[in-house]
This record gives sequence, C-alpha cells and structure tokens, in this order.
Amino acid sequence: MSLIVQKFGGTSVADAERLFNVAQIVTETAVEGNSVVVVVSAQGDTTDTLLAKAAEINPNGSKREMDVLLSTGEQASMALLALAIERTGFSVITLTGWQAGFKTDTAYGNARIEEIDCKRVQSELDRGNIVIIAGFQGINKYDDITTLGRGGSDTTAVAYAAALKADLCQIYTDVDGIYTTDPRLVANARKLSEISFDEMLELASLGAQVLHNRSVELAKKYNVNMEVLSSLHRVPGTKVKEASDVEKLLVKGIARDNDIARISIVGVPDEPGVAFRIFSLLAQKRINVDIILQSIGRDGSKDISFTIAHGNLGTTLDLLHTNAGMFNAKNITFDENISKVSIVGAGMATNPGVAAKMFEALYEAGINIQMISTSEIKISVLIQRSEAERAVSVIHDYFNLGTGGEKTV
Amino acid sequence: MSLIVQKFGGTSVADAERLFNVAQIVTETAVEGNSVVVVVSAQGDTTDTLLAKAAEINPNGSKREMDVLLSTGEQASMALLALAIERTGFSVITLTGWQAGFKTDTAYGNARIEEIDCKRVQSELDRGNIVIIAGFQGINKYDDITTLGRGGSDTTAVAYAAALKADLCQIYTDVDGIYTTDPRLVANARKLSEISFDEMLELASLGAQVLHNRSVELAKKYNVNMEVLSSLHRVPGTKVKEASDVEKLLVKGIARDNDIARISIVGVPDEPGVAFRIFSLLAQKRINVDIILQSIGRDGSKDISFTIAHGNLGTTLDLLHTNAGMFNAKNITFDENISKVSIVGAGMATNPGVAAKMFEALYEAGINIQMISTSEIKISVLIQRSEAERAVSVIHDYFNLGTGGEKTV
Repeated sequence: MSLIVQKFGGTSVADAERLFNVAQIVTETAVEGNSVVVVVSAQGDTTDTLLAKAAEINPNGSKREMDVLLSTGEQASMALLALAIERTGFSVITLTGWQAGFKTDTAYGNARIEEIDCKRVQSELDRGNIVIIAGFQGINKYDDITTLGRGGSDTTAVAYAAALKADLCQIYTDVDGIYTTDPRLVANARKLSEISFDEMLELASLGAQVLHNRSVELAKKYNVNMEVLSSLHRVPGTKVKEASDVEKLLVKGIARDNDIARISIVGVPDEPGVAFRIFSLLAQKRINVDIILQSIGRDGSKDISFTIAHGNLGTTLDLLHTNAGMFNAKNITFDENISKVSIVGAGMATNPGVAAKMFEALYEAGINIQMISTSEIKISVLIQRSEAERAVSVIHDYFNLGTGGEKTV
Repeated sequence: MSLIVQKFGGTSVADAERLFNVAQIVTETAVEGNSVVVVVSAQGDTTDTLLAKAAEINPNGSKREMDVLLSTGEQASMALLALAIERTGFSVITLTGWQAGFKTDTAYGNARIEEIDCKRVQSELDRGNIVIIAGFQGINKYDDITTLGRGGSDTTAVAYAAALKADLCQIYTDVDGIYTTDPRLVANARKLSEISFDEMLELASLGAQVLHNRSVELAKKYNVNMEVLSSLHRVPGTKVKEASDVEKLLVKGIARDNDIARISIVGVPDEPGVAFRIFSLLAQKRINVDIILQSIGRDGSKDISFTIAHGNLGTTLDLLHTNAGMFNAKNITFDENISKVSIVGAGMATNPGVAAKMFEALYEAGINIQMISTSEIKISVLIQRSEAERAVSVIHDYFNLGTGGEKTV
C-alpha cells in the first residue's frame, strides 16, 4: 500500500462539478489501495475576492489579520471537498493548518515552515480516513494563523509528502504537465514525461509558473517524487525527480519572462566597493536582483547593469537617484521593453556548444541580444520584448524540442 | 475603567460601510476609557450562502465538516473588522474560537459550552488591544471546530462577558431594542427601557426573535448585564437584567408565534400512562412539545391536545399514526392555521385578574380562544391565525402598553 499526497489548485475545486471530479480522483486512488492525503487551495478566485474586500477596507492592513482572512478560503474549500467525498461513502476528515501540525515562523503573509507535526494526520490515516489538509496555512509559536504566500499550497503538499515519507506527491493543476515551452506560444511544444528538480527550478524561476519554486526546492531537499498533472484531462503528467533518474537532454525547455526591467548605472568609478554599495542598497529594500552584468573598467570608469521584476522599477529608480551620491554615477538608464528568454537542460553542463547554438538561432532570426547570463544548466538572454515570442519559437525549432530534443553525447 | 463586551450581528457587519460604522462604535467605547471585547457574526447572508453551497454538494454532509465550513464566516468578518479598526490607529487583534479558549462538547452544529479559558483574551486586553472574537464557534476535546447553532454569537458574547466578569454585554442588532410587541404589527408599540431575564426568556421563546434564548439563560445564570441596541441608530436600547432591578409591569410585552400547529388525540382511554406513552414517543424523536392540554375524562375516555413547531407536523402525525396502537385513540386531528399570542409580565404573578382582562379584550373583539396556557409570568392563547394580528393589537391597547402600561399594585 502506498501513501500518495494529492494537491488540487483553485481551478480544480472551483465549483460543485469540479469538486465531484476531484472527489472521483481521490476516491479512485483510495480504491486502488492507497492511503491518500489531499491538500487543497481556495476555490477559484476566492483569494482574490478576499484580497479585494480587504483592500476596500484597509489597503495597509496588518499581515496577521490578512492571514486570518485569507486562510478561510482553504478552510471552506476543504470542507466542501469533504462533503463531496462523503457522498461516495469513503471516510474523510479535514484538518486546518493548525490541526494538521503545520508549524511556521512568524512571518505573516510569507511564513516559512519550522516543523511538520504529523501526529494527527497519521492517526487519521491509521483510522482509514482520507485526510484533507488546508493548503497555504500554518500556525506560529503564538498560536496565530500564518500563510505561506502565493503558491503556498504546493509547498504544503510537498511538506506533508516529505514528513509522511509519501511515495508520490501529485500536483493537480489546470495544465497537464511541464512543456518544452509555453504551448500558447509555440504550437509544437511538447509535454515532458520527466524533468529533474534542478531543471524544474530553473524553469519555474524563469517564468514557467506551473510549480511554486519553494515546493520544488523542498521536494529536492527531501527527495520527494512529484508529478504535475491535470485534474480535468486524465492523462499522464510530468514527473519531477532527482537528476540521476532523469534522462539528460541538452535542452529540456525554454522559458520566457516578460515581468522584467533592466537598469544600467553608467560610468561609475572603477574602484572596489561600488557594486557592494549599489546592491546592498537594493537588498535593504528587499528588491530582488536577477541578472547582473558589469562591464570591464575603461578610462577609470565602468557600467553596471542588472534586471529586476518590472513592478520594482519605480522604487528602484527612486532609490538609486536619491542615493546617487553613494556611487557617483554619470547616468542611470533603464529599459522596460525587454524579455528574458532562457533555455534549461541538465545536459548542457557537460556539453559545450549549447550556448553557441542558441546564439546562432537568434542571429539567424535577426534578433539582437542585449545581455547574457549563464549557470550550470541554464542560459538566459535579454532581448526586445517584441521579439521574445519569435525567439522562443526559433530556439525551440533549432534544438528540435518538438520532436524529442537532442540527447547528450 | 470598565470592561464591555459588544456583539455585532450579521447585518451590522454586512459591508465595508457597516464595518466602518462598527469600528466607530468600538473605538468610541475604547476612547471613553473602556476595555472592549468584540464578538462578531458572519457578514450579512454569508452563512446562508455557505449552507446553500454545501447543500448543492451534499445535503446530508457530516455536521463536523459543516462546522469547518460555517466557522469561516465569522473568521472572515472578524478579520475585516480588525482591518477597519486598524485604520483608526487602535491596537486590535482577532481570535478564533479555538484561539480564544472557547471549549465546547462534541455536539457539532449545536455545541454546548464546557469551559471558557480566558488566558489569551485577558493577556491581549492587558496589552491594550481591542479583542475581536469570532462568534458562534468553539473547539472540542478532539481539537475540532464546533459551532453553537443559529444565534450562537449572542451566546458567545454573554459567555465571555460572564467569564471576564464584564460590566456590560451589549448586543448590537438591526432593531433598537425590545418592544412591547412587534412594531410592524402595532403602530404604537413602545420600546422598553428595561426588561427582566425571565420576561425576556418568555418573550424570546414566544417568538420575539431579538435575542437568542440560550444567551439570555446564560446571562441570567451569571447575572450579566445585557443591553440590546441598534448599531445604526445610536439611541439607548433595552437593558436586560435581574428581575429585582426591573420595574414590575402587569404586562411587559405581547408576542405572536405563527410557527405552530396543534394536534389532538381524541378519545384515548382514561387510564394512567397514556400521556407518558405519547410524549415519550415524541421525545425520542426530539420533537419539542409546547402547550399540552388534557381534557377531563368522561365515559372512560379523554382527549389530549398539544402544539408543536409547524415544521414538525408531518413527522409527528406519521409517528402518531404508526404507533396508534400504543395509546388506542379514536381519532387524531390537527390544525395548522393557528397562532399563539402571549402576554408576558413579571407583575402578573402577584396580580390576579390579568388573564381575565386578556380574555375580555379578545371577547370584545369577537376572537375565539382555542387553548389556554399559563405560567408564572406568561399567559398564552391559541387562536385562528387570521385573527392573530388583530388580537395582538387589541390586547396591546387594552393594557395601555403604547403609553407605558400599568404598574403592579
């Protein structure tokens, strides 16, 4: 008998019909002889509705009370799912974050896991119950409700899978797996049957938006077998597992990220400490910097360029102008009409020439590269946003991703 | 410095505007130097919406999961009220039933209080916080969420007022107090400035529907000073207190109850045990019987008549017919077109002639009385439903309730 954790997102539990569909998936899994732990998100756009209600009353409300408010969404949806499962005759019980022993730190709105106390969950499983846990929420040392931030239900699911040593953690969502690239952009995008944690992490942080990054990090840390699949189309999804269990392709997938802006600080003195001063300034304001490029010093000065999330552009420019004296720049420029296009594949670490091939594809398509950044298993380029979709498409074709990709040599 | 518990019902917190209004009442009370504990119901028709959602999925769902679902209503509304109060600059904190130490038995959907552990509430008050508690909900010995049943938020408020030894428990609602009778029926119905617990209990159970009976019983038991008042019209309400502190009027108020049906069991043997067999049968099915009348035996047989809530009529008739052999009746009749009209007043216990005066009023109006039932401070009559409104009106006039009523002699 296996233990399977199944997580269902907001669209999968949006209404009565969807809930019955989920009840069917869950009970079929139980009929096959498995113990089942279910993690649910809030129904449909419940969270957005609650956020709007709160914003109408107080856009600057305390995070503690926002968590009290938002956590009701998952509590309601798990109860409704339980009612749907009860109709099938299966024994089922729901547990909120605090009932399920999901202990976090005190960072309301973006809490981190401190401990998963599985006693109650395990005893309910031992009684033969299907156990439904409210995703996204926990309890801190003050006995206060916390939430994990957006996408937190994925993290909840993986955390219980790790703590209960589950055989599989299935993330049911509204897409049926991880694709070589966004199928809405590239017609012959292909669903991957498997992907490594590291590749998934690069793709997720690069804008693929299927799995929440924290959940993949956690799954990697505790080696939890994950599967991403659709609750509506009952076809095999994409398995996410350790790199050693995954076939190494030169390029696994291509991601595009439009939520990005570039800032360049031009003509700062070519002396130690300049980069430190700039980026510690940003860190203090909790502004995440993605790609950083520094030009080689010339005539005693150099340029520093970096990218940030587009929403942070205004704050960042204000901050830099206000503190311009600290780094003595000649000029500060920015570009918000850019996209980041990235290729990811565990095979590229040991296969030279992947980067060159990507650049060749872009060159032949006449697309200019503004910045380049690379890691072990990823190559990112910044290009004009108007050319991003075409860039994804030509790279996808160049590496033959639609027909299976290229094996490593 | 006084400690005041304020309870706000669903209409008082229905939307942002109403929540700001409540925030104003609460903070004004705090400005006056009082410690404030606030108990809230779910917003507007939230509970009905949740019930409808659940019924669509499973009309026979477990009460445990219904409680998980319904308790989200109060949790959401208390968080929204906290956000509104935060805007005023006051320190405020919300507590769910389990956080506030509201411990109940395991009767999901209709739980009874076992213990109020005020540690957390008291420590938040000591820190200078306005404390908002979710009404209607508690936690049982399994760490499961329970609810108190309809009107439970009143009970929550009184329970904390008793446990914290509060100076006053204000029940804010959509009416501005307790009236001599329903102002929609009788134009010159008058708001009472005060009423005793016992009078309130008789009026509440007789259909006055302003305060939940359990809350008044609890207030009487722990001698909690209550006040019923409107959250919208800021005028003095009605104080509910110990009988010894309340002016004794012959008749305090008049109630009408249309949710009633009469059943008569005609011609049962005039021998011991017949009534016992009939009413223990009903008790087993948890059917509450209100008025019971038994005729004097004649020719070896007698008639037994009683009233029940209208919704129980079908079940009760089925039950009686199925078990007719147990009491050997000649016939079973019923009447569902009746109303109960009752007058309540602590003074009537020591003042003879009140009943006669009520009957006189009805006689002069040509209204026939079908059944009569009396208690220490109440006289009820059953009459045709079509005459009930007129009956209330003539009795109201006969006792001069519109102009202050008659003092006891």
